[in-house]
Amino acid sequence: MLPQWIIEKKRDGNELSNKEIHFLVKGFTEGSIPDYQMAAFAMAVYFKGMTPHETAALTFEMMHSGEVIDPARLPGIKADKHSTGGIGDKTSLILAPLAAACGLTVPMISGRGLGITGGTLDKLEAIPGYRTDLSEKEFFQTLETCGCSITGQTAQLAPADKKLYALRDVTGTVPSIPLITASIMSKKLAEGIDTLILDVKWGQGAFMKTVEQARELAQALVEVGTHMGKNVRALITDMNQPLGRSAGNALEVQECLDILNGGGPDDLKALTVDLTAHMLERSGVFPDLGKARENILQCLENGTALKKFEAMVTAQGGSTEWDFAEAEIQEPLPAPADGVVSAVNAELIGKGCLVLGAGRQKTDDTIDHAVGIAQMKKPGEAVRKGDPLAVIFSNDRKKMDESFPMFGKAFRIGSSFEPRPLISEQIS
Amino acid sequence: MLPQWIIEKKRDGNELSNKEIHFLVKGFTEGSIPDYQMAAFAMAVYFKGMTPHETAALTFEMMHSGEVIDPARLPGIKADKHSTGGIGDKTSLILAPLAAACGLTVPMISGRGLGITGGTLDKLEAIPGYRTDLSEKEFFQTLETCGCSITGQTAQLAPADKKLYALRDVTGTVPSIPLITASIMSKKLAEGIDTLILDVKWGQGAFMKTVEQARELAQALVEVGTHMGKNVRALITDMNQPLGRSAGNALEVQECLDILNGGGPDDLKALTVDLTAHMLERSGVFPDLGKARENILQCLENGTALKKFEAMVTAQGGSTEWDFAEAEIQEPLPAPADGVVSAVNAELIGKGCLVLGAGRQKTDDTIDHAVGIAQMKKPGEAVRKGDPLAVIFSNDRKKMDESFPMFGKAFRIGSSFEPRPLISEQIS
Repeated sequence: MLPQWIIEKKRDGNELSNKEIHFLVKGFTEGSIPDYQMAAFAMAVYFKGMTPHETAALTFEMMHSGEVIDPARLPGIKADKHSTGGIGDKTSLILAPLAAACGLTVPMISGRGLGITGGTLDKLEAIPGYRTDLSEKEFFQTLETCGCSITGQTAQLAPADKKLYALRDVTGTVPSIPLITASIMSKKLAEGIDTLILDVKWGQGAFMKTVEQARELAQALVEVGTHMGKNVRALITDMNQPLGRSAGNALEVQECLDILNGGGPDDLKALTVDLTAHMLERSGVFPDLGKARENILQCLENGTALKKFEAMVTAQGGSTEWDFAEAEIQEPLPAPADGVVSAVNAELIGKGCLVLGAGRQKTDDTIDHAVGIAQMKKPGEAVRKGDPLAVIFSNDRKKMDESFPMFGKAFRIGSSFEPRPLISEQIS
Repeated sequence: MLPQWIIEKKRDGNELSNKEIHFLVKGFTEGSIPDYQMAAFAMAVYFKGMTPHETAALTFEMMHSGEVIDPARLPGIKADKHSTGGIGDKTSLILAPLAAACGLTVPMISGRGLGITGGTLDKLEAIPGYRTDLSEKEFFQTLETCGCSITGQTAQLAPADKKLYALRDVTGTVPSIPLITASIMSKKLAEGIDTLILDVKWGQGAFMKTVEQARELAQALVEVGTHMGKNVRALITDMNQPLGRSAGNALEVQECLDILNGGGPDDLKALTVDLTAHMLERSGVFPDLGKARENILQCLENGTALKKFEAMVTAQGGSTEWDFAEAEIQEPLPAPADGVVSAVNAELIGKGCLVLGAGRQKTDDTIDHAVGIAQMKKPGEAVRKGDPLAVIFSNDRKKMDESFPMFGKAFRIGSSFEPRPLISEQIS
C-alpha cells in the first residue's frame, strides 16, 4: 500500500476502507507519511468529502492515535459539551461546574483561540494562578474532588489531530465537514465520556455562516458520535450577535461569575441552562428537559454551581479572589443616534477584540487578558444619542483608536428589531 | 501575501494573478513555501483547473525559475519536438539528426523513463560511451558542429518543474492538464527554441487514454506556446499499438539506425517523417509539407541524416561501432493460431518490458539496455500457428518466464484488422 494510492482513490471519489484510513493516520502520526501527502489528501477530502463510514473511521483512528481515557477510572456519568465557537461564547466556564453540581462528571479538555477572541483556556488563564496544563493524575484528582475539570490537550491526546489541524490551517483545508468532524470528535471521545452535547453555531460570528452549513456539520457530528456508541445531541444556535454583554478574557470570566451568582445576561444564561439541561436529559439524569432546567436553576440560585467552580479553580491553582488584571484605558462607545439597537455584528466585535489583543493572529502571539469590550447593549434595547453602547478596554492608545471605529460599525441603531430564536434546532 | 490565501483562492475557483503565481513558484523553488502547501495547491488545481492565462503564467514562472538558453547564442532556426510518451516511441533519435540535416538547429533536452520503457536518454545510453550529462558549453559546441544535440536536464533548467514533478508523482496530482502543460512547456521553452512540435499520444499505451483527453492537452500546450510567441503545432497520434517493431533501449536504437539507413518499419518512419516535416514547415524552412517531406526522404536515402546522428554520437563521446550489449536469452513468441494480427496491446508490451528490466519502477532502479522485445508483428500482418510474433530478449530466466505470458496476451489474432490513422488531428 502506497500513500499516493489512497490519495488517488479519494481524489477519484471512491470510499476508503478502514484499513486504508488506519494506514494513513498511523503513518502520518509516526512521520512515515510526510506532510505533503497528507496535505494533498486533505484537499482531496475537501473536494470529494467522506462517507459517514469513512468519517467514523477517521475519527476512530485519530482518537486512537494517542491515549484514550478509560471511563472506568472516573465515577458516575461522564459528559461534556463542545461549541464550534463564537464571539463572547463563555458557556463552558459555567456549564462545567453547573453540570457537576447536578451530578455529572465533566472531564473537559479545551483549546486555545486562534483569530478573533481567546478560547476557553485563554479565558480561564485570566484567573491568576489557574493551571491549564494538568497532568493526567492531576486531572483525575480534580475530577474526583470537584466533579469537573477544564484543562488543555496533552501531547498524548489525539496527536494525529494536533498534527493534522496545524497542517490544515496552512493548506486551505480547514472548511471540510468530515475533517472538522473527525477533529472535534477524536478529541472529545478520547475523554472517555458517555454523553456529548454539541453547540453548533451559525451566523456572522461563527465558522458556519448559514443554518444549512451548521446543520450539515451537526448531522455529521451526531452521526459519528452515535456510531461510536455515545449519547450525542447537537443544538444549532445563533451567532450573529455576541453571546452575553462582554467579549475578552477577564471580562468574560467576570460575566460567568455574574451568572454563577444568579445574575448575568439573559441570552448567556438561557443558552447555558439549555445546553446543561440537554446534557442531563441525554445522560438520563432527568427524565425530561423541564425537570433538568428546574434543577439547574436551583443550583445557580443556591450557589452550589459557584461552589463547584470555586473548588475547580482552587484545585487547579487559581485564586478565587477574582482579582483580574484591569485595562488602563476604558472608554465608552457612544450611541450615534436615538433608537433601538437592531443588530450587533459579532464578527466585527471579534475583529475589534483581536486588534485590542484579546485574541491571537498567530499561534505564538500572547494574549492580553484585560482587554476587550463589556456592557454591550443587546439587540432590542433602546438607546439615546450619546448613551454608551458598550465600554472598550485597552492597554494601548493606538489599539484603542484602531478598534474603536470597528466596534462603532458593529452596532446598528434602527427603529425596530426582529428577534431570532437563540436555539433553532435540535439534532440527535 | 500568504501561501494559504493563494491555495484558498484556487480552491474556491478564482483566477490567480501573475503576481500570486510568481510568489508561489519563487517561494517553492527557494524553499520558503514548503512542499505541503504546494501539494495542497496542486490538488486544488487538479480539481479547479487553470485558465489559459494562469497556465501561461505558471509556465513562464517555472521556465524562469532557472536558466533560460539565450537563442542568440545558437545559429539558425531552433526547433524541437516533444512527445507525451508511448511504447516503442523512439522518434527523437531519428528526428533530431534528420531535422538538422534539413537545416534546423535542434537543442533537445530530454528525460528518462519512469514506468514502462526507458526515455530518450536511457535509449541513447545503450550506445557505449554516449554522454547525456553535457555541460552547457559542451551542449552548445555539439549544436554548433552537428546541428543537434540530445542531452539531459541540468539542475539549472526549470528547477521548479523538477521539484514540482517529484511532488506531483507522490501526491496524486500528475493527471492535471494545466500542470502537465506547464511542466512540458517550461522545460522546452527554456531551450530557447523558435518552433515546437508536440506529439500528443492517445490510447492504451499512452498517458491520455482517449482522443478527447489528448486533444484537450494538445490545445493547452499550443495555447501556452503561442502565448509565449513560439511557432507551435501539435499532432494527435495513435498509441494503442507500439511504434515500430521493437521496444527496449538498445533494440530501439538499432531500429533507429535501420530508419537512418533507409529501411526500418513503416509506421515509425511515417510518423518521424511527418513530425519532421511539420517542424520544417512550421519553422518556414519549406513552404508546404510536401516539399518538406521530399527533402526529408532525400536526407534519409542519401545518408546525410545518418551522418548527423553519427556526428552527434561521436561529439557526445559515444561509439559508432554500434556494438550494443546483447541479451543472453532470446526466445521467439509463437503465434497461438493461424490468422491476422488484429491488435497489439501497447500497454501490455510496455509492462512486459518493465518486468524484463527495460524500464524503471522506481527512479533509482537501473536499466538493462539489452532487454526488450523486437521483430514484433504489426496489426494487419498474417501469421501461421507457431510463427514468431516477436522475439523476447532477457538476461534473467525468471524475468523471461514472468514476462512471456504478458507479451503473449498483448497479441490478438483474428480474421480481420481495422486500420486506424496514425496521425488523426493537427492543432496549431
